[in-house]
Amino acid sequence: MPYYIGDVIQDEKKMIARTPEQFEKTGVHVKLNTRVEEIDTERGTVQLSNNETMPYDTLVMGTGSDVFLPDIPGLGLEGVFKLKNLTDAIRIKSYIKDKGCRKAIILGAGFIAMEMSEALTNLGLETRIVYRGELPVKKWDPEFSKMILEELIKNGVGFFPHRTPVAIEKGGTRSLLRLITNEGEIETDLILCAFGVKPNTKLAEEIGLQLGQTGAIKVNASQVTSRETVYAVGDCCEVFHRVSKDWVYMPLGDIANRQGRIAGHNIGNYPMTFPGIVGAQSFKIFSLDVGSTGLDEKKAEKSGYHPVSTIISGTPIARSMSKGQKLELKLIADKYSGKLLGAQAVGQGGAVSRINTLSACLWSEMNLDEIGYIDLAYSPSFGGAWDPIHIAAQRLRRSL
Amino acid sequence: MPYYIGDVIQDEKKMIARTPEQFEKTGVHVKLNTRVEEIDTERGTVQLSNNETMPYDTLVMGTGSDVFLPDIPGLGLEGVFKLKNLTDAIRIKSYIKDKGCRKAIILGAGFIAMEMSEALTNLGLETRIVYRGELPVKKWDPEFSKMILEELIKNGVGFFPHRTPVAIEKGGTRSLLRLITNEGEIETDLILCAFGVKPNTKLAEEIGLQLGQTGAIKVNASQVTSRETVYAVGDCCEVFHRVSKDWVYMPLGDIANRQGRIAGHNIGNYPMTFPGIVGAQSFKIFSLDVGSTGLDEKKAEKSGYHPVSTIISGTPIARSMSKGQKLELKLIADKYSGKLLGAQAVGQGGAVSRINTLSACLWSEMNLDEIGYIDLAYSPSFGGAWDPIHIAAQRLRRSL
Repeated sequence: MPYYIGDVIQDEKKMIARTPEQFEKTGVHVKLNTRVEEIDTERGTVQLSNNETMPYDTLVMGTGSDVFLPDIPGLGLEGVFKLKNLTDAIRIKSYIKDKGCRKAIILGAGFIAMEMSEALTNLGLETRIVYRGELPVKKWDPEFSKMILEELIKNGVGFFPHRTPVAIEKGGTRSLLRLITNEGEIETDLILCAFGVKPNTKLAEEIGLQLGQTGAIKVNASQVTSRETVYAVGDCCEVFHRVSKDWVYMPLGDIANRQGRIAGHNIGNYPMTFPGIVGAQSFKIFSLDVGSTGLDEKKAEKSGYHPVSTIISGTPIARSMSKGQKLELKLIADKYSGKLLGAQAVGQGGAVSRINTLSACLWSEMNLDEIGYIDLAYSPSFGGAWDPIHIAAQRLRRSL
Repeated sequence: MPYYIGDVIQDEKKMIARTPEQFEKTGVHVKLNTRVEEIDTERGTVQLSNNETMPYDTLVMGTGSDVFLPDIPGLGLEGVFKLKNLTDAIRIKSYIKDKGCRKAIILGAGFIAMEMSEALTNLGLETRIVYRGELPVKKWDPEFSKMILEELIKNGVGFFPHRTPVAIEKGGTRSLLRLITNEGEIETDLILCAFGVKPNTKLAEEIGLQLGQTGAIKVNASQVTSRETVYAVGDCCEVFHRVSKDWVYMPLGDIANRQGRIAGHNIGNYPMTFPGIVGAQSFKIFSLDVGSTGLDEKKAEKSGYHPVSTIISGTPIARSMSKGQKLELKLIADKYSGKLLGAQAVGQGGAVSRINTLSACLWSEMNLDEIGYIDLAYSPSFGGAWDPIHIAAQRLRRSL
């Protein structure tokens, strides 16, 4: 019975990293460095890597995700990293320090690649992003990706588009490693693979749990899998998207946290259902805030909507107080119902706060008429009397 | 017909200050420095201060508010100001410069007093706030007012509570003015009266327009007054509060803007109704963001709710990245329905963005169960995986 954490961490004061001993006092047994090798659903036991067998009434799959890695030679060389957990981060930092690294390459251009390009630059490394596509962060529209690309370049990060890695070799005298691409070689001391993740469903498949269309574990609103006594939460399972009305794969830390608590509630006999997501996400890249929520036009169409959109250029604070900071905001809505479907924003401040407000609007299926006149806390230090949210919503409304 | 602006400024690109000549080109006649002396509702004409008589089909009352002034001797002395319009601001700045002012007193402690204390301090004046109450900004709970008071003091602003002004006199050799209070005198060079405003309803009353319980002009959802051909917008009229479900007086610039556009739409034959407000407001005081939305407990009770509340101490960004910045958030909800009723926040960043998100939640009458699990754009640079919004909503939910 006590092999879960769920309800114990209800109080935010207790939500701090704990040692297994500290958990033990609250009635939760934690086994670190111990892998579940096999699950016996008939007997209700798990076989651990230390040869122990443990019984369960209820099982929670929190197997997370695996990092995508390219199928190229040299991936096992020292200095080639993935970034999945704290241990990876510690290893990267030690390597940089021990080897006196001066140059780094990031393979991939998603938001983890963006955050890492800033982190490595701040550690003093000459950082380059090598990407098979044209522009970074393809989840954002080209208008926004271009602003992000400019920000990378302004801060000394190199961006090499249309390049596919072919092999990694040991370096020569000037560097520790050499990346061979389809268009020439680049010398570097460190290579970070940031191609994204896929759900880790190995154990789930072994016990016959149903997977969804996305390849992640199928769960219901209580986080229960196709087996009544098995729950799944986090990066290994799907999540319901309130706007597209389907189950999607969105491996983000805040979603995993919420799913974990819902599972804990249900297992602890405080029934509760997960209300779903609207797809809100954000990252910071040097001086830019970047955020998005809901659906882009492609996904909106696929979900049966008839998307229309507008992009406006505004300022994060009132124009009269602004020192030239920019904020670009895109809204996407359904042509026939007028309902908001999604938003993207990039700004020198103020983008993520708008995305959060618009996420609350999306949550309640608000339409553009309402959003155009929604009551926000106006003060010139934080926005104009007409906020970019109002202006964009009214403009898009007029185009319906 | 063309004596209104409403629909002309639909496009945000056109929303810039214009000269009367520029307006003329768009078909709008603007008369500056011209007062309406009398309205003849029988004939449908207004009598102007330049003796002109002008016809109207539709009339919009935008008479704004008057500043409350204390009934004390010396109010007419040079150096005693109110702050109502741009001219007042220009006069204050000139006076400070011309007289070489070194000291200022602000009478009152509302949010305009707060903003002015920062502005005057930044101009190099030793600034003191004289107030009859105990703590500044009484719209916020004492927990928050105390943080604001600390911020004032930290930045060198003096705060004199429990003082009532009795008279203003000319100063001696060391200062230009002297404020006499119920508890002694204070030397100063400038006195700013910031006691708040009341609706200017003189013309409205003369033509028999109905006033609401608040003393401001009564309007309906189309901004029409008790006379079909007369609209009212802005600080002279009431506004519908979506949470308290009654008409309130809330003279704020963003509300006036929205009401003006609604009136313009209706007059221009694009019928539209004003959806109301949730009472969102904010100000900045030195390094603090301050915001509130919805109802406080007193107003909630008066509106028939059974308020419960919680205050949490958090950080504006993820604790792991935080440099000790604080964010205090209070949520107020109805004990029986679990619906959010209001929120207050003060923080070294991040307070107003939370208030805006919570305003969108209030707008849609969301309950604490939903808000506790709402999808926000998580990134450590902008908040924790559990945002202060989630933590406060879940904690308050558990107390129901």
